[in-house]
Amino acid sequence: MRILLIGASGTVGQAVAGALAPHHELIRASRHSGDVQVDLTDMASVERMYREVGQVDAVVTAAGHVHFGDLVSTTPEQFLSGLMDKLMGQVNAVMAGIPHVRDGGSFTLTSGITAMEPIRQGTNATTVNAAIEGFVRSAATELPRGLRINAVSATLLTEALDAFGPYFPGFEAVPGERVGQVYRRSVEGVCTGRTYTIWQ
Amino acid sequence: MRILLIGASGTVGQAVAGALAPHHELIRASRHSGDVQVDLTDMASVERMYREVGQVDAVVTAAGHVHFGDLVSTTPEQFLSGLMDKLMGQVNAVMAGIPHVRDGGSFTLTSGITAMEPIRQGTNATTVNAAIEGFVRSAATELPRGLRINAVSATLLTEALDAFGPYFPGFEAVPGERVGQVYRRSVEGVCTGRTYTIWQ
Repeated sequence: MRILLIGASGTVGQAVAGALAPHHELIRASRHSGDVQVDLTDMASVERMYREVGQVDAVVTAAGHVHFGDLVSTTPEQFLSGLMDKLMGQVNAVMAGIPHVRDGGSFTLTSGITAMEPIRQGTNATTVNAAIEGFVRSAATELPRGLRINAVSATLLTEALDAFGPYFPGFEAVPGERVGQVYRRSVEGVCTGRTYTIWQ
Repeated sequence: MRILLIGASGTVGQAVAGALAPHHELIRASRHSGDVQVDLTDMASVERMYREVGQVDAVVTAAGHVHFGDLVSTTPEQFLSGLMDKLMGQVNAVMAGIPHVRDGGSFTLTSGITAMEPIRQGTNATTVNAAIEGFVRSAATELPRGLRINAVSATLLTEALDAFGPYFPGFEAVPGERVGQVYRRSVEGVCTGRTYTIWQ
């Protein structure tokens, strides 16, 4: 397959690339590196990316930031920033991508364990990730031409323990290699409308 | 209790008012009517409302629109409009409301059956409602002074059958009176972080 991986330079993106690259033609997109550059929050940039890349069989998004902070001191602007970046960014990638994905192709989005398991300072993360899972659940019923859409919700990656470990006390970390394989299941599998969880 | 009901003039709001008014002092807020006017998408308007109303024991929000339309023809602006109105509107009501709700008080937000049960043209609704339920799940862990927060997710109300029935083929409608009682359970009960569902 010809697969566009958006957010290829991040921790999850690298894990996905590791799982897909041996089996597929991978086009790596990132904000500042990769084969093509894209800002998912800017629809013109998203459309330019798809024109440059051409037709693909699958799109994987592993991009987007959320706001971490105490709810009481979070501003509406900070809260909105997570919605615009991780949620609307991935929604933009799907809505603009539909004409560029071949019949029977797929989108795989990135949610996260915080959708169901709140963590300290993580209300924006929980909100955004729950929204992504809702989007996938419903978009699957609407996509044309046999296109599929799923989300992957991983716990903390072993590779991200240094950066995010303190936010996840007592949470089991998983190696990126396992996470990458779940994205491969979504891309090469038959399911749609699902959130694949990689945590208990 | 002294309860602020935002979105009092809508179908759900009227049902909530019917359940709460016999037992509590109810202050009704709406965009264009009621005891106080508010635009939840405008933080200055939200803060003005709370200054006018003063301290309350509970806030109930039953306000907000989402975008209905085919995903393929939905624009990012249309998709964002639902996030700004029903999601950020209710988030604004909570974040600005915290200092105005007495110790041990509560927020009750409005989600909807589409969070879990997709309907035609309803991807924005599913996304927004799932996000609201995520927000409630995590905000409950962060609220100070024993404040609680829940969401209520109803199916179609009998009173809204004329307007929305065609979107919900085969869905059982419930009378507003039953829906109002569930909001009362949230306001007067002990739970927090829950989504009360009124549908099978």
